[in-house]
Amino acid sequence: MLKTGIKTKAYAAFSTEGDTKPLEIVRREPGPTDVLIDIKFCGICHSDIHMAKGEWGQTVYPVVPGHEIAGIVNSVGDKVTKFKVGDHVGVGCMVDSCGECEACAEGEEQYCSKMVLTYGVLERDGKTMTYGGYSERVTVDERFVVRIPDELPLDKAAPLLCAGITTYSPLIHWGAGPGKKVAVVGVGGLGHMGIKLAAALGADVTSISRSDSKKADAQKMGATNHIATSDKAACEAAAEQFDLIINTVSSAADMNLYLGMLKRDGVMVLVGAPPDTLPVHPFALIPRRKSLAGSTIGGIRETQEMLDFCAKHNIGSDIELITIDQVNKAYERIEKSDVRYRFVIDMSSLSGK
Amino acid sequence: MLKTGIKTKAYAAFSTEGDTKPLEIVRREPGPTDVLIDIKFCGICHSDIHMAKGEWGQTVYPVVPGHEIAGIVNSVGDKVTKFKVGDHVGVGCMVDSCGECEACAEGEEQYCSKMVLTYGVLERDGKTMTYGGYSERVTVDERFVVRIPDELPLDKAAPLLCAGITTYSPLIHWGAGPGKKVAVVGVGGLGHMGIKLAAALGADVTSISRSDSKKADAQKMGATNHIATSDKAACEAAAEQFDLIINTVSSAADMNLYLGMLKRDGVMVLVGAPPDTLPVHPFALIPRRKSLAGSTIGGIRETQEMLDFCAKHNIGSDIELITIDQVNKAYERIEKSDVRYRFVIDMSSLSGK
Repeated sequence: MLKTGIKTKAYAAFSTEGDTKPLEIVRREPGPTDVLIDIKFCGICHSDIHMAKGEWGQTVYPVVPGHEIAGIVNSVGDKVTKFKVGDHVGVGCMVDSCGECEACAEGEEQYCSKMVLTYGVLERDGKTMTYGGYSERVTVDERFVVRIPDELPLDKAAPLLCAGITTYSPLIHWGAGPGKKVAVVGVGGLGHMGIKLAAALGADVTSISRSDSKKADAQKMGATNHIATSDKAACEAAAEQFDLIINTVSSAADMNLYLGMLKRDGVMVLVGAPPDTLPVHPFALIPRRKSLAGSTIGGIRETQEMLDFCAKHNIGSDIELITIDQVNKAYERIEKSDVRYRFVIDMSSLSGK
Repeated sequence: MLKTGIKTKAYAAFSTEGDTKPLEIVRREPGPTDVLIDIKFCGICHSDIHMAKGEWGQTVYPVVPGHEIAGIVNSVGDKVTKFKVGDHVGVGCMVDSCGECEACAEGEEQYCSKMVLTYGVLERDGKTMTYGGYSERVTVDERFVVRIPDELPLDKAAPLLCAGITTYSPLIHWGAGPGKKVAVVGVGGLGHMGIKLAAALGADVTSISRSDSKKADAQKMGATNHIATSDKAACEAAAEQFDLIINTVSSAADMNLYLGMLKRDGVMVLVGAPPDTLPVHPFALIPRRKSLAGSTIGGIRETQEMLDFCAKHNIGSDIELITIDQVNKAYERIEKSDVRYRFVIDMSSLSGK
C-alpha cells in the first residue's frame, strides 16, 4: 500500500470467508493526468464475490472489491483535458494498460496483456496494489475515466461500467441490430442489461432462464419471447432460431442445447466465467458452421459509446440500493440469484456525505 | 435400390467389419437435367471408413462409399446446359438439396437441411439409397456436378472434391490471405490440402503435428514453420501467434493448447469430426475474444471456385494410386495414419476400361 497520499475509508475482504469489513487505504495524490473521483455509488458484480472469497485462486488480501464505480470529479491534474471538477464520471474494470500494443492502438485496452484491473492486482510499477470501488474515492488516469451523461442517474449508471459494457461489446462486435434474433441466457446482473441493450439496438430478443419466474420482468426490459429451459418443448421449438446468443451463465450442462438453438453461422458468446470446462460436441458446431466465442468487457472508447447510447435510450440498470454494511448480506443473496437485478452500494453510507 | 436402370459394378461394405466387396448396383437413366459420369478415380476419405464400419451409428448396408469422384461425362439429359459428353467433371459429398431455402439461395447447399449426401442416405424421394464413387459410373443432377479444369490430372483432382473444399471453404470464410498467420493441425488427407491452399492464398502457414516426421513434406507443400506438439518449448513459443487455425484432427487432449495459440480475435475451425466431446475452458476464449467454430465442405459454387483456383496454382493432392481390391488394405493404413497423403482408387481396375 502507498505510505503517503490521501487517507480513504474502504471496505475489504480479509480472507477466503469473503466478509467485508472497514479498512483504511491510501489513494495517490493526483498526478498531472490523474482524476480524483468522489465515489457516489458502486455496483456489486459476481466477480467481487469470486475475488473476495479467493475462488479464482489468486486473491491477495486485503482486497477492496468494486469495479462499477460512479462518482463526481473532486480534482484533476494540470494536464487533464477531458474532465473538470464536478463532472459525473465512471470507472469500470480497468485503470491502466500499456498504451502501445496493437490492442491499445485499436482502443481495445481490455485485451492488452499489461492491462491493470481496478482492484486486486499490482499496478504497472509492480509494487502498488489496486483497490476498488468499495471506498470513498479513487485516483485514476483520465485515459480510464469515462463521462456519465447527466441524463443518467449515477446509481443506475454504476452497473453499466461492467454489466453494461460486458454485454454491449459482444452485441456490437457480432452485429446485433434490426433483423437479428438475439437470445440472452440468464436474466441476472449481466443478462438484464443484455436484454435492454439488444432490444434498444433493434434486435428481436429472447430471454432464456431456468423457469418463467423472471419472464414478466424480461419482457418489460424488451424481450419479445422467453424460454424456460425446464420446458423441453419450448427448447426444441427454439432449434436453429438465433443469430447470436449472449450466454451470461455458461453452465456446462446446457452448452450443446444452446448451440442447437443457433442458426447457420450463428455465434454463442460466453461472457460469464464459470470455473469448469465446457463439454462441446464438434457436431454442435460443424454441420451449420456455428461458433462458440468469448468476450470480456469492452474498450474505453466503446464504454463511452455505450454510456452515450444508454443516455439516448434512457437505459439504466434495475437496482437494489444498499448501504456499505449490507454488502455481506448482498453477497449471500447474489449467490442465491436473489437480486433484481443488481445491488448498488450507496457510498454516502461509508463517506458520510 | 432401383429396379430398372443402368447396371453398374461397385464395391460395398456389407457389415460393421467394413470390408468392401463387389456389388452390382443400378444407376438411374439420366433425366433431363442429369449427367451420367464414367468414374475414372475416387479418393478415399476417412469418412468412408466411419461409414463402412458403422462408426457414426447410422449405416444402412450395403453401403458404397466414395465422395471424391473424378470422371468423364458419358451422356447428358436434354436440358443439361453446363456439360457435354467428354467433359472432365467431379462430384463431391452431396448430390441434391432443396434448392429453395436460404442456404441454397446463398449457394451454401451443404447447409441445406434437405441436402442429400453422395452415399449412404435416402434421396429426397424418401425411397432410393444413394451409392458413392467406388463404382463404374454415377448419375447426378448437373447442379451438383463441377467442372475439373483440363490442367488438373483427374487422379490428383479427385481428393479436391472433399479434402480440398473442406479446407478451402473455411480458409476463405475466415479470411486467410496475405498478412494472416494460419496454422493447420494434422498433416493428413485434409491437412496437406489445407497447407497447400492456405499458402497459395498468400497466408503465412504453420503445420502442426505430433512429431517432425512430416515436417519436410509440409514445407514442400508451402508451410514456412512446423510445430511438433511433442516439443513443449515450441508449443509455448507459439502462444498467441495465429489468426486462424484449421484443425483437421480435433483431438480432445489438445483443444486448449491450440486455443492458446490464437491471437486476439483468432478463430479455430474444426473440420475433423471426432466422436468425442471437447473440453473447452471458457478462459481459453474469453480473455482474448477467441472463437471455436466448425465448418463442413463448401457449396457447389465455391467448389468450382476452388477447382479453378487449384488449376491456376497447379495444386493437386499428393496421392497413392491403388486398385479397387486394395481398398481394405488402404483402410487399415489410413487408420494408422500411414498414407502420404490420400489414397485414390484407379477405377479402371473395376470397370476394365
